[in-house]
Amino acid sequence: MPAAIDFYFDFASPYGYFAAARIEALGARCGRPVAWKPIMIGSAFKASGNVPLVEQPLKGPYCRRDWDRLSRLWQVPYRFPEPFPVVALAPSRAFWWLSETRPEAAVPFARAIYAAYFAAGRNIGEVAVTAAVAAELGLDGSALAAAVADPVWKQRLKAETEAAIARGVFGSPFIIVEDEPFWGADRLEMVEEWLKSS
Amino acid sequence: MPAAIDFYFDFASPYGYFAAARIEALGARCGRPVAWKPIMIGSAFKASGNVPLVEQPLKGPYCRRDWDRLSRLWQVPYRFPEPFPVVALAPSRAFWWLSETRPEAAVPFARAIYAAYFAAGRNIGEVAVTAAVAAELGLDGSALAAAVADPVWKQRLKAETEAAIARGVFGSPFIIVEDEPFWGADRLEMVEEWLKSS
Repeated sequence: MPAAIDFYFDFASPYGYFAAARIEALGARCGRPVAWKPIMIGSAFKASGNVPLVEQPLKGPYCRRDWDRLSRLWQVPYRFPEPFPVVALAPSRAFWWLSETRPEAAVPFARAIYAAYFAAGRNIGEVAVTAAVAAELGLDGSALAAAVADPVWKQRLKAETEAAIARGVFGSPFIIVEDEPFWGADRLEMVEEWLKSS
Repeated sequence: MPAAIDFYFDFASPYGYFAAARIEALGARCGRPVAWKPIMIGSAFKASGNVPLVEQPLKGPYCRRDWDRLSRLWQVPYRFPEPFPVVALAPSRAFWWLSETRPEAAVPFARAIYAAYFAAGRNIGEVAVTAAVAAELGLDGSALAAAVADPVWKQRLKAETEAAIARGVFGSPFIIVEDEPFWGADRLEMVEEWLKSS
């Protein structure tokens, strides 16, 4: 079994959303499984001294334009969500809960959360919205809401985020394959080239 | 005559160097002239609050790896130069001097300066090295050294840098076509798509 493509992302990250639209096809072309790993990128920013793009002068307005263009170029439905950003604790904890209790549902849930936020403009920072998205996939929304409040899954998300930081993750999306790090949706082509030539 | 592709870059910028290797072919494919515009990106960083990549924790070491990969992916000769970065006042002023006095020589000079620094490891921060690179192209190295010290070309570089900042340039490379801004060597594909569909 070849090593997985470790795909780190924050559910509030637009570039993470765009990368998520292409990562599975990339994995399939390269014969690699993809390990989806939602984290809280704000914690990584604290570790690296980074500042969120939208809070930076000039870069903030620029990126909003870039996301619109990327949506057209890659033909991925997108509109700038309000509020933005959100603290995506609820869907992130829920993902890790699903990864242990309904592993086959975790990635479809992640995709649905991303679409709910960046295509449909639903506030995934709210537990009720996260639970509703899960219910639309036939999952148990009440059990999800309970998991989001459970110290076990709070701790799991914290541990996954710390493990990512320890591996050098400093942005979203961030891809690591066999210790080779790639930062940004614009690096998917380079990931593929690297996998095919390694 | 279609509007030019305005190509802003700093001679000390690795991503600027990689973009420079592809920008003319892109312009040719799109039927657009390319206007090369060396600036002092440090001044833009002061305006935007940006910090050079290599000075940032985690991002610095990451980018050195990324440049090595980009060199292989795009098949552009590259090795990390020492010293790095340099303050590229001499070649930048010399470029603007050439753009008025020997316009046909300005872009070949810019390419030669980039290659001298990022492929051959020569210190383009030094006037003598800049003059030597010019002399190898058959240009007058002594006249170049005089131009670099001339208030006229000091002021021209300053004015070009300020004009770039006024247009919203905050990094290198930075491309503007008819007021549409594109930041980074990774956006060349998007520039091309935009030009072809506009």
